[in-house]
Amino acid sequence: MNRSELEQYIAEIGSADEEALAAARERQAALIKPPGSLGELEEISIRLAGVTGKVRQHFRKPLVIILSADNGVYEEGVSSAPQTVTIQQTINFIRRMTGVGALTKEFGNELLVLDMGINGDVPAAILSKDMEDYQTKVIDRKIAYGTKNFAKEPAMSEEQVLQAIAAGIEAVEFAKAKGHDILGVGEMGICNTSTSAAVLGALANLSAEQVCGRGGGLEDAPFLHKKDIVADAIAEARTNRLDPVGVLALCGGFDIAAMTGVFLAAAHEHIPVVIDGYISVTAAVAAAKLCPEAADYMFPSHQSFEIGYKKAVTELGLHPYLDLGMRLGEGSGCVIGFEVIRAACAVMDGMATFEEGGINDDYLEEIRKGDCF
Amino acid sequence: MNRSELEQYIAEIGSADEEALAAARERQAALIKPPGSLGELEEISIRLAGVTGKVRQHFRKPLVIILSADNGVYEEGVSSAPQTVTIQQTINFIRRMTGVGALTKEFGNELLVLDMGINGDVPAAILSKDMEDYQTKVIDRKIAYGTKNFAKEPAMSEEQVLQAIAAGIEAVEFAKAKGHDILGVGEMGICNTSTSAAVLGALANLSAEQVCGRGGGLEDAPFLHKKDIVADAIAEARTNRLDPVGVLALCGGFDIAAMTGVFLAAAHEHIPVVIDGYISVTAAVAAAKLCPEAADYMFPSHQSFEIGYKKAVTELGLHPYLDLGMRLGEGSGCVIGFEVIRAACAVMDGMATFEEGGINDDYLEEIRKGDCF
Repeated sequence: MNRSELEQYIAEIGSADEEALAAARERQAALIKPPGSLGELEEISIRLAGVTGKVRQHFRKPLVIILSADNGVYEEGVSSAPQTVTIQQTINFIRRMTGVGALTKEFGNELLVLDMGINGDVPAAILSKDMEDYQTKVIDRKIAYGTKNFAKEPAMSEEQVLQAIAAGIEAVEFAKAKGHDILGVGEMGICNTSTSAAVLGALANLSAEQVCGRGGGLEDAPFLHKKDIVADAIAEARTNRLDPVGVLALCGGFDIAAMTGVFLAAAHEHIPVVIDGYISVTAAVAAAKLCPEAADYMFPSHQSFEIGYKKAVTELGLHPYLDLGMRLGEGSGCVIGFEVIRAACAVMDGMATFEEGGINDDYLEEIRKGDCF
Repeated sequence: MNRSELEQYIAEIGSADEEALAAARERQAALIKPPGSLGELEEISIRLAGVTGKVRQHFRKPLVIILSADNGVYEEGVSSAPQTVTIQQTINFIRRMTGVGALTKEFGNELLVLDMGINGDVPAAILSKDMEDYQTKVIDRKIAYGTKNFAKEPAMSEEQVLQAIAAGIEAVEFAKAKGHDILGVGEMGICNTSTSAAVLGALANLSAEQVCGRGGGLEDAPFLHKKDIVADAIAEARTNRLDPVGVLALCGGFDIAAMTGVFLAAAHEHIPVVIDGYISVTAAVAAAKLCPEAADYMFPSHQSFEIGYKKAVTELGLHPYLDLGMRLGEGSGCVIGFEVIRAACAVMDGMATFEEGGINDDYLEEIRKGDCF
């Protein structure tokens, strides 16, 4: 995928279906409850109509897409965990041993795990280039053994950004072909709260203070260093007036770039897509900066503990449903988000309207006949 | 049930299982993730161990208990909806047409609906005194055709409070016998945000301003009147130094009193119990005032839109998981709360420990043999 192909792809993305939105609003207003009393559940069900064009619907085949990659900035010491955790947990996704692994297993969701650029080799026996193997293997879309250290040089080339975005798009097209009707976007990559902070700061015009948290659990000195290198990246992006692709190349990661592709493609294919935590929401912001309409297809899940999350989700005009103080990543929040969305669909489809729910003569007759259930 | 029987019952309630709490904390700390990164999911799973004594567990048979009753204070004009909505929606619970009806149907939960004192007669064909009929009928535990108007006289007698608490206890004992392993507590009763405000204000030493919201959607004038009568009730309870049973008699409802019984009984029977919105949390506070240990068995669900909710949940030392701006009641929030709790159980049971999740020689050998899944 080159620049002009990306532009063409983005131009094909339309905004939410206005007619379906209006019909959904009308049905919500007719349901048997005080207006607005189901809060965000009402809003979710209306927005979902805008995504698919259908007012009454259910999403029965959720998929969490996980993008794994390493980051060259690791050599700056801005992580509390060793880099090998990236490959280890990527393997553990397939074993369903991690947070998102346990959650997706419980809720019957599937995982699609892509190696976008782990600094190490996933064992050949559980690695495949063929997405069809997604239920048992990591899918190989490795661009390099990690990005470059953005504290010293650009993290990657623009070609690499576009390659990662294309992989994200491919994943969504594959998911759609497999019948997955709702997506979650997660990641694994040591140091990716640093890359996210830099990308978000540059894209949303925020300071390093506003976007840098302690990630997995950073001590004071490396935390200060993290803020310094993020501030430098934000300043450089601003000076050079970089566009989102340029920002991703400067200080992003293969994971964030691929996730950006997933968000764009979900909008392109009219599939609702659920944001996880800080890295996920940063990619969502990147997608929305490339294509504002893409935000119509995005649904938040939980309020991440990471400091920059709130700024990012506000930038998208969204409000997270869950307040659980989570900061694991992996797409773990998406799994619970799917259940909130399921609840919104149940309300829209299953509740009676005031007319249907009236206790009128017809119903009393039904009761007498004993066939009211 | 008389006063001394209630005191005896309360004396039998123990606090959470300290040994299980410690074992659960230990397992959480060993799971393969940054410590604390699953936030409230970790806390929930630990508290659940304290409830049942088991560290790894799932709750597969949720039940929402709904208490329906009318309130004499309706004659003060402090509701935006007609009183007939109470009986109408109670019938609609059984038809699964309401918010909680649609949600429990979708998520496979069951409902136990009790007529505690509706001002009207549920049709005989869908009413039963036998709880065994709970899947198709409203259960008749009617104390009276609504309470008295607490703006003019005590809402009920102490005997009636105790009768309602006993019905709540009976419902939990029945639920346990039926194998229900987690409970939600909902209600239906026009004007029960007014009774809740008065009860909560009196029990938690709060002012009418702090506990009165607009309920289903009150206009300015009746909203002011609501605050006046709630302030009077709070003042009277304070002057007479009423205990929780006395407060419920003065200005509570049959629904709130029965819900108080449900919360006490869940603790007595070591069953986790999920709080819904404002009325539910007020009953939870009443139960905790009668028996502080009961709070160990309570789990919040969503942050209700009603103003007093936050004060009440803070009084219990709890933090709601969902932020959806809901204010429907019926137990609707409990259904989504069950799924958050399910996620917490999945994490505790399904995630590997650092030891189990290590990519060591044993695992690489498993991969070679192809039996790692």
